[in-house]
Amino acid sequence: MIVILKQNHDPKQLDELRAWLEEQNVAIQANYGVHSTVLGLIGDTAAIDSDLIEALDIVETVKRVSEPYKKANRKFHPENSVIPVGVTTVGGLDFAVMAGPCSVENREQLCEVAHAVKAGGATILRGGAFKPRTSPYAFQGMRESGIDLLLEAKKQTGLPIVTEIMDISHLDAFADVDCIQVGARNMQNFELLKELGHCNTPILLKRGLSSTIQEWLMSAEYIMAGGNENVILCERGIRTFETATRNTLDLSAVPVIKELSHLPIIIDPSHATGISRYVKPLAIAAAAIGADGIMTEVHNNPAKAMCDGPQSLTPAQFAEMMREIQAIVAVRR
Amino acid sequence: MIVILKQNHDPKQLDELRAWLEEQNVAIQANYGVHSTVLGLIGDTAAIDSDLIEALDIVETVKRVSEPYKKANRKFHPENSVIPVGVTTVGGLDFAVMAGPCSVENREQLCEVAHAVKAGGATILRGGAFKPRTSPYAFQGMRESGIDLLLEAKKQTGLPIVTEIMDISHLDAFADVDCIQVGARNMQNFELLKELGHCNTPILLKRGLSSTIQEWLMSAEYIMAGGNENVILCERGIRTFETATRNTLDLSAVPVIKELSHLPIIIDPSHATGISRYVKPLAIAAAAIGADGIMTEVHNNPAKAMCDGPQSLTPAQFAEMMREIQAIVAVRR
Amino acid sequence: MIVILKQNHDPKQLDELRAWLEEQNVAIQANYGVHSTVLGLIGDTAAIDSDLIEALDIVETVKRVSEPYKKANRKFHPENSVIPVGVTTVGGLDFAVMAGPCSVENREQLCEVAHAVKAGGATILRGGAFKPRTSPYAFQGMRESGIDLLLEAKKQTGLPIVTEIMDISHLDAFADVDCIQVGARNMQNFELLKELGHCNTPILLKRGLSSTIQEWLMSAEYIMAGGNENVILCERGIRTFETATRNTLDLSAVPVIKELSHLPIIIDPSHATGISRYVKPLAIAAAAIGADGIMTEVHNNPAKAMCDGPQSLTPAQFAEMMREIQAIVAVRR
Amino acid sequence: MIVILKQNHDPKQLDELRAWLEEQNVAIQANYGVHSTVLGLIGDTAAIDSDLIEALDIVETVKRVSEPYKKANRKFHPENSVIPVGVTTVGGLDFAVMAGPCSVENREQLCEVAHAVKAGGATILRGGAFKPRTSPYAFQGMRESGIDLLLEAKKQTGLPIVTEIMDISHLDAFADVDCIQVGARNMQNFELLKELGHCNTPILLKRGLSSTIQEWLMSAEYIMAGGNENVILCERGIRTFETATRNTLDLSAVPVIKELSHLPIIIDPSHATGISRYVKPLAIAAAAIGADGIMTEVHNNPAKAMCDGPQSLTPAQFAEMMREIQAIVAVRR
Repeated sequence: MIVILKQNHDPKQLDELRAWLEEQNVAIQANYGVHSTVLGLIGDTAAIDSDLIEALDIVETVKRVSEPYKKANRKFHPENSVIPVGVTTVGGLDFAVMAGPCSVENREQLCEVAHAVKAGGATILRGGAFKPRTSPYAFQGMRESGIDLLLEAKKQTGLPIVTEIMDISHLDAFADVDCIQVGARNMQNFELLKELGHCNTPILLKRGLSSTIQEWLMSAEYIMAGGNENVILCERGIRTFETATRNTLDLSAVPVIKELSHLPIIIDPSHATGISRYVKPLAIAAAAIGADGIMTEVHNNPAKAMCDGPQSLTPAQFAEMMREIQAIVAVRR
Repeated sequence: MIVILKQNHDPKQLDELRAWLEEQNVAIQANYGVHSTVLGLIGDTAAIDSDLIEALDIVETVKRVSEPYKKANRKFHPENSVIPVGVTTVGGLDFAVMAGPCSVENREQLCEVAHAVKAGGATILRGGAFKPRTSPYAFQGMRESGIDLLLEAKKQTGLPIVTEIMDISHLDAFADVDCIQVGARNMQNFELLKELGHCNTPILLKRGLSSTIQEWLMSAEYIMAGGNENVILCERGIRTFETATRNTLDLSAVPVIKELSHLPIIIDPSHATGISRYVKPLAIAAAAIGADGIMTEVHNNPAKAMCDGPQSLTPAQFAEMMREIQAIVAVRR
Repeated sequence: MIVILKQNHDPKQLDELRAWLEEQNVAIQANYGVHSTVLGLIGDTAAIDSDLIEALDIVETVKRVSEPYKKANRKFHPENSVIPVGVTTVGGLDFAVMAGPCSVENREQLCEVAHAVKAGGATILRGGAFKPRTSPYAFQGMRESGIDLLLEAKKQTGLPIVTEIMDISHLDAFADVDCIQVGARNMQNFELLKELGHCNTPILLKRGLSSTIQEWLMSAEYIMAGGNENVILCERGIRTFETATRNTLDLSAVPVIKELSHLPIIIDPSHATGISRYVKPLAIAAAAIGADGIMTEVHNNPAKAMCDGPQSLTPAQFAEMMREIQAIVAVRR
Repeated sequence: MIVILKQNHDPKQLDELRAWLEEQNVAIQANYGVHSTVLGLIGDTAAIDSDLIEALDIVETVKRVSEPYKKANRKFHPENSVIPVGVTTVGGLDFAVMAGPCSVENREQLCEVAHAVKAGGATILRGGAFKPRTSPYAFQGMRESGIDLLLEAKKQTGLPIVTEIMDISHLDAFADVDCIQVGARNMQNFELLKELGHCNTPILLKRGLSSTIQEWLMSAEYIMAGGNENVILCERGIRTFETATRNTLDLSAVPVIKELSHLPIIIDPSHATGISRYVKPLAIAAAAIGADGIMTEVHNNPAKAMCDGPQSLTPAQFAEMMREIQAIVAVRR
């Protein structure tokens, strides 16, 4: 970390800053120039909050020369991480496709969709059991019994399953789940992240609606610091002023993440746009830009499940999208 | 809720929508005009997700005529709510002032600040025991023992205390806390909100960095739906493109909340700006616009606590700010 | 346009609204329901400002059932528009590639880059003569003489040229330019747009940093309403909170625009990211999602032009990118 | 300007950077540390684009130690600027109040409002003659004849007038206007700003919807660099994700601008919120935080002018607001 001091800084305040930095076990190497005084901080600066230093009166600016994340950092792990998810992987040569219904509703619905997405080319079955809902009066998901149905669908189809956790206290119910999803609203639920760092299940970490890429990697670091290095990142749109789509999908995050981190990154075009007819073009763009996979919602019976799925594809639409994605993947690999 | 259909909608899809709505126990009153077909939905529509209906192919637009929040809604509770917090209140005639250190560090620091803010005019002592930190390597707070120190400072000064909870599993440690804070990052941690709805302690609910005012009120509704109607809202800045301040304080939220809800709203200028010299002008503006109080950080020893507080005021600055606020409050009341 | 009134609206205010609407030559068809009163406005509502009506006390909500843009609207022009730009076109079967230096600096630089981008597969030469600069002290471009050099490079290479206009008073200098660019900062310079509506040259209309897709189409409508229907849209990143890239490229705008409008849309990944190593992946994604082309910066001599081009590609990088784009285009067409 | 180089930078690239900087007439003072190499750039760095340098491969970060604006900078002009506007001033001890109709519609309307706002305490009459409208089909204002009416209202009331310019070519019509407004959409219309720098009339420069405070000051610098130092800044809301108000008023801009610049700053709560009932509280907050004035819309006949003014106050509301503002101003001065 490099700290540039203001030109006419108060030497007493500098002494205080030096004393404080030394308490943090950070060595200081100072450059006194005519034009500037620059402190190079040497040692483990990951725990130092650069914002706090930057806000000091005597400090002009602060710049990290090492990122605050270590285990998620490509510098220390140049090879791409390949994350095992049941019988398949995410981050390797194959393009991962997580597909399934928004919510698990009943055995018939789930199994029908599960068979359909497998036939279409999905590699992992998704489905919501615990559902984060903006309204306390809305359906909150089938919860534990939803996970039981997912496990049954897994048995029938052989597809590994991914489903969202909302609170540490539910962790036992996820014992046989192949990949645990942390939703966008919980991306900075640090107590949950810490706890998930102590389990062995791969974690799918969605980006928060207004989280920077660095904050997202720091949340991955929380999980990895606890020992669980199997983290898959998922971009699902950020909140902007535009209202034509529910969120704005930040596809630039793919090359940025590939540069900064070795972790795989997938794209969720269903939640990013909220509108099914935009899902296919964005999924194709995700494959073209080098994402490691996609996550998408598929429903079986648009008539019955009408309100399940303005952002969901039918099995036929899903299969058609998969054919186009495979053509892109063939060119890009 | 009013649903306007597209002009040439498919009657089969309309039948499906009608069937689905009836399953939700919502009555339908249809207006067939030359120019438009409009469905009025009558009954308890709070559980209906309007986004889902709006995204249907046959629907032009959807408009709630009743807000999705009920207990937080001023329509059903025209009088301002006055929330008791220990020996004081928030939302009544007095201007609430929550002040104290960012983090509880040790007995000496906390008690010194507690006495100083009481002398300056604070009505409630704040202090972080469980600290949400972006980095897993940063100090995570004194946790349970920090709460013990807060209780000791309360004993010494008589000030009620407010401190942040990060996970349901810590709830026992908050048994004697006068007001439990839910931080911006946990505003949509719905499992936490539900659980807090079952306790009797007043809740200070901070607005999420990218949460709309309606989402914020829905999170209040989660707590209130569980039975705990003692909710205080706290605006602390939203995330925008501007970088001159850490966040952008949305003071318009005060008149908007006052119109929509009976709940009190306070302002946190310390976190909104991240820079101590902007705290006073924004706190004064908060008093002028009709907020029910402020929450602000104060540290005792700028030299020692240097990195605790670029956004913190010294006790002298706090006392000066309080004098100016009191002059404004005197004019506005 | 449909206006839904509040349930207990003041009849006097409704009379005033009716009178005002009739003055605007709009017929009113009212539906009086038990649950709602809905006014259908029939006639030319494009000139009616829906925000103004929505803000009236008696109005619950307003919804346009016809978009406020007509000439840019796909409903009235179902076929894709193909815009002629000199000897080539934008919006047809071929993928348009506008490439060249950020600024025209001198004859040697421009001609060298022009030949290089032609060899690499560019179809149109870009280059800035009038430069919008944040600082009044920065180089403002070669202006008229820069356009002369572009015309010379056109003569040498046969490539049509596109360059930015900053003020109506410069229009004469653009007489021989094949496509006139309106920059992001001038997207709502309505007097400029009106004037460009009276010339015959195709217009490349960049999206404003914080403009919605609807506002962008309304700006295209300004040009088209004047008689010039040759408008090409260019998405170049919107302003968000993320700082890893200079702006956030909104690729979802491609399918949204393709649905709403018949106008072609191209992508500028250079300005969107500000970083040359992210240009190629985003350009490939643009080709995959169905954009009609790209605009990208290329410099010839990275050593000399060092500060010209952190977001510019070298000719070799450009040629490599073009090979990958052509592979994608071959699959997608 | 300070440039920190990456630790293992390529010496050849450094030579190129040095050569380029010297061409820009900037002297370089280098600090070679073990941990960092830091270049201090000495001389007139205002014309150097720091983003361009920062994006170079060998550069870790760049920091301006002098702001890129000079004439607008408080460092070089410690006293507040007081801008004369006809018979009154903005930026001195008095609180400026610019009030009047959104659009000039006819003589009767304008004069009635002008007398009313004068009676209520306005110091300057505002009114739109040239109107920037999102739709080409909407009323574009009375243009030149609107200015004639403003001049007549000035004659009747003695109030100086402020009105918006949309294009340089209209400048002659503004010869007798006391203050020329540059609207938010033209804040970075650099050719317009340059031209206004050559006239003597005070300029009211509105902040762009998505402009940073630094960009705004750079636009003021454009005007001042041309010789016209009479610039008044006006904050009118920035574009965010929140939809409860039309824009989000950034009141923090007041203390930030007061620190960085000597120019006066006023607040426009009418455009910031778009809703008349939020105008008063925000105007009061503006007075409390230390703004130099407000700009607000007032209409005379809510019945006739119904669609003129969801964000406009009636004369009675304006007078009531003025009484409350004066009470605040009395306390704050």
